[in-house]
Amino acid sequence: MTTAPQAYQELSALSKEIRLLRSIAGVLGWDRETYMPTKASPLRADQMSYLSGRAHRLLIDPRFGDLLATVEQDGLAEDPASDAAVNLREWRHDYDRGVKVPAELVEEITHTAVLAQRSWVNARKASDFSIFQPHLTQLITLTRRMAEHIGYEQTPYDALLDGYEPGETTANVQRLFAGLRAELVPLVQAIQDSPVRPRSEILTRDYPVDRQYLFGRSAAAAFGYDLAAGRLDTVTHPFCSGIGPGDVRITTRYNLNFFNEAFFGILHESGHGLYEQGLPVEFFGLPRGEDIGMGIHESQSRLWENFVGRSRDYWTYFFPRAQQMFPEALADVTMEAFYFAVNEVKPSLIRVEADEVTYNLHIMLRFEIEQAIVSGDLAIADIPAAWNETFAKYLGIAVPDDSQGCLQDIHWSFAGFGYFPTYALGNLYGAQIFAAARQALPDLPAHIRRGDFSPLLAWLKENIYSQGKRYRSRQLVEKISGAEPSHEPLVAYLQAKYGELYHL
Amino acid sequence: MTTAPQAYQELSALSKEIRLLRSIAGVLGWDRETYMPTKASPLRADQMSYLSGRAHRLLIDPRFGDLLATVEQDGLAEDPASDAAVNLREWRHDYDRGVKVPAELVEEITHTAVLAQRSWVNARKASDFSIFQPHLTQLITLTRRMAEHIGYEQTPYDALLDGYEPGETTANVQRLFAGLRAELVPLVQAIQDSPVRPRSEILTRDYPVDRQYLFGRSAAAAFGYDLAAGRLDTVTHPFCSGIGPGDVRITTRYNLNFFNEAFFGILHESGHGLYEQGLPVEFFGLPRGEDIGMGIHESQSRLWENFVGRSRDYWTYFFPRAQQMFPEALADVTMEAFYFAVNEVKPSLIRVEADEVTYNLHIMLRFEIEQAIVSGDLAIADIPAAWNETFAKYLGIAVPDDSQGCLQDIHWSFAGFGYFPTYALGNLYGAQIFAAARQALPDLPAHIRRGDFSPLLAWLKENIYSQGKRYRSRQLVEKISGAEPSHEPLVAYLQAKYGELYHL
Repeated sequence: MTTAPQAYQELSALSKEIRLLRSIAGVLGWDRETYMPTKASPLRADQMSYLSGRAHRLLIDPRFGDLLATVEQDGLAEDPASDAAVNLREWRHDYDRGVKVPAELVEEITHTAVLAQRSWVNARKASDFSIFQPHLTQLITLTRRMAEHIGYEQTPYDALLDGYEPGETTANVQRLFAGLRAELVPLVQAIQDSPVRPRSEILTRDYPVDRQYLFGRSAAAAFGYDLAAGRLDTVTHPFCSGIGPGDVRITTRYNLNFFNEAFFGILHESGHGLYEQGLPVEFFGLPRGEDIGMGIHESQSRLWENFVGRSRDYWTYFFPRAQQMFPEALADVTMEAFYFAVNEVKPSLIRVEADEVTYNLHIMLRFEIEQAIVSGDLAIADIPAAWNETFAKYLGIAVPDDSQGCLQDIHWSFAGFGYFPTYALGNLYGAQIFAAARQALPDLPAHIRRGDFSPLLAWLKENIYSQGKRYRSRQLVEKISGAEPSHEPLVAYLQAKYGELYHL
Repeated sequence: MTTAPQAYQELSALSKEIRLLRSIAGVLGWDRETYMPTKASPLRADQMSYLSGRAHRLLIDPRFGDLLATVEQDGLAEDPASDAAVNLREWRHDYDRGVKVPAELVEEITHTAVLAQRSWVNARKASDFSIFQPHLTQLITLTRRMAEHIGYEQTPYDALLDGYEPGETTANVQRLFAGLRAELVPLVQAIQDSPVRPRSEILTRDYPVDRQYLFGRSAAAAFGYDLAAGRLDTVTHPFCSGIGPGDVRITTRYNLNFFNEAFFGILHESGHGLYEQGLPVEFFGLPRGEDIGMGIHESQSRLWENFVGRSRDYWTYFFPRAQQMFPEALADVTMEAFYFAVNEVKPSLIRVEADEVTYNLHIMLRFEIEQAIVSGDLAIADIPAAWNETFAKYLGIAVPDDSQGCLQDIHWSFAGFGYFPTYALGNLYGAQIFAAARQALPDLPAHIRRGDFSPLLAWLKENIYSQGKRYRSRQLVEKISGAEPSHEPLVAYLQAKYGELYHL
């Protein structure tokens, strides 16, 4: 007979083994995107599906369920905010999700995704959706099957969303997005109607790639991203990989003639990286030591990228340094002109390059298409047409080809359906959290103007990073800000900032 | 009741799972040496020992033994050269070795080795053996324990040697080395006494690193090393990692002012790489699809590096190309002068930079020290003194510091005791195999002078690479050359080549 404390110990060991397997898959995934030889693709698919299959089987082993039941009958988790209660809640959540999906299906999805990703790269290069279409069709079929296994209250999409933002529902997101859209549309319109325009050509001058690397790297280091516990590499689709303690890697891509692409990409990924590096290492492998979910993760990448990195305070400190690094491009530019240029609002094709105001419209488009292909209302073959039509409606511009349209993002190629809405949730949460930080740290603007990010990092570490999965996203935001998640802080921030810039 | 064919299927599946785990560890090991952040070291140790522990447990599971027994009682392996017989023979060899060593000991060695390697890097940087000493002491203690578990006929060193060169014995190696030493010593002496000297300063001129990379890469590609199934990266201690089909990576290190270091390092590692890339992919994960052992592996790296890459025929083709790539360094140099320079015989400190003639003396030194620390005749603390004394005796020069002495090689830091002698075996086998290739391919010198290596590669692929583990090293050498392994072909080759160069 296993006692409750014994069962808890055994669950902890299993949880750590699963996390170790994922950390190994993390290295392999990072390598696949950075340095792996092309012909290693089939072997890599086998390696990745082996690791995910094994992690999944450990989770769904009946033993895991028995141990959970033993501990749950005990009083170990009486205080819901205790470490043990947090671990138990999340183990139960993951176990319940896990047992419903057969291990073979998980392995099939992983395996299909590795090949799909390769085909997505080719499709994107050729700007030809039809290359990717059969793989995406396979992935959607498998994903639908997965959603049915998991179950849901209202729509299959709920089951997917819960995988990235535990406890969140499609209806909640629709509501938040509707509120945001109602305020965004007139704001975008007012900006479009404004006669004021930044000198955007500043950003498309020559920015030598080797110096972009050095400048971006130093900016990440200035935030507090630890490069001795991380790296900065070049990839097609930038990401941050939180492999584990001491190993959190960020990536970017460079464009000689567009400053924003690499630089704000690096700030964005280092935001993710700071969250990962700030997780409580003493709980590594236990839910208490893991990130909450993608919404809060994105709130941190967006907070560091936009609320900090696109602020006037930030460039007060960094613009003279940018001028030193890129004298040819920036000698004749004022800080104010540069600040306005990096904050230009202009409907554009590529999500990751979109400005803060229009960005969320890119997400709403993807959220709608995803719901439609998961429900079957939209055929896979019709994605390009649907994409281009909705894009014209939301952003008022025509999509010239698939590579700048529905093939631009990597997410579908790894079956990441339900992931996109967390980007906009991240913006909403980020605004709400940053407003709370400004209230808590009256000198924050002065710190940022001096290039000192340590007070902000310490505050975020204490309130968010070190908390691990202690709270669910909504709870955490409420605990920090004193209010439910809402579109209002983001709208207030955007109206104030862009009202001033565009003389609205 | 499991039938023999069923048991064979199950063994094959287990064998493939073990190889898949090793391929995953291969990626992690490569990453550790190339791009891993420093602070990831402890996590990497956990990841590596988890993978090796799991692979080891699969191998030593009683089920594996039962399945083996079932198949062995069957007639499946009547023809000893059949694929099934080869697999069975090697599974039995590995299982017998494996069951004798407790899984905990294997994990402990792997774990200790990861930390030892980090300390070796620091010790080497500081040129201070005492930094590495406690880790090496730990590793030797664990290795001795392992040798006792494995068992041996004459000396614990036999058990270690068998891990790199299955079936080989310390006594055999001592005999081969004695024969070689008797011929080498007078040859080295004669060369030292010769008044003829190459213009070695040719090689210490400026060779820009970026162009060394391009030139070395093109030389590897010319051999037939497939860069779409491989990579060339920079590390402290160069190696080749045969991760699996489509993924065989080589590494090197650069020295602006020494041409040989990167270039011949690349030829060496691409020799290993060609062997790995030439293994029969249809048998991946089965012994029939794996390399024979380190002796034959080294025979291929040395064959491509020296017998091809340091030949006059080779430079007849490549020297004009080297002149084009390095015009500042080589404009005033003749092919003959360059050929003599890259073949200079001169006792020197660093094994991997040693010439073909003195190289084996470096190995004999290590072979002796290893035997002495494994037997306990030599205390770990006394290694630097013993090293320096023997070095002076064999090579006639004083070792100025540990980093150029007993800390120069990575092998002991991963507990690779028993590995070194395979380098000299590789030289012996390489000479014997290359002599057979020259007999079989009368036009070989003409091919090489045209830069066409495909006939040689095809011959090696047919006779060695595609054979996997079909034969043991001695058997293979005998099958190819018609004679037992011997020091004579190497001595004949060295005497002819260096007799001409040094006018002996």
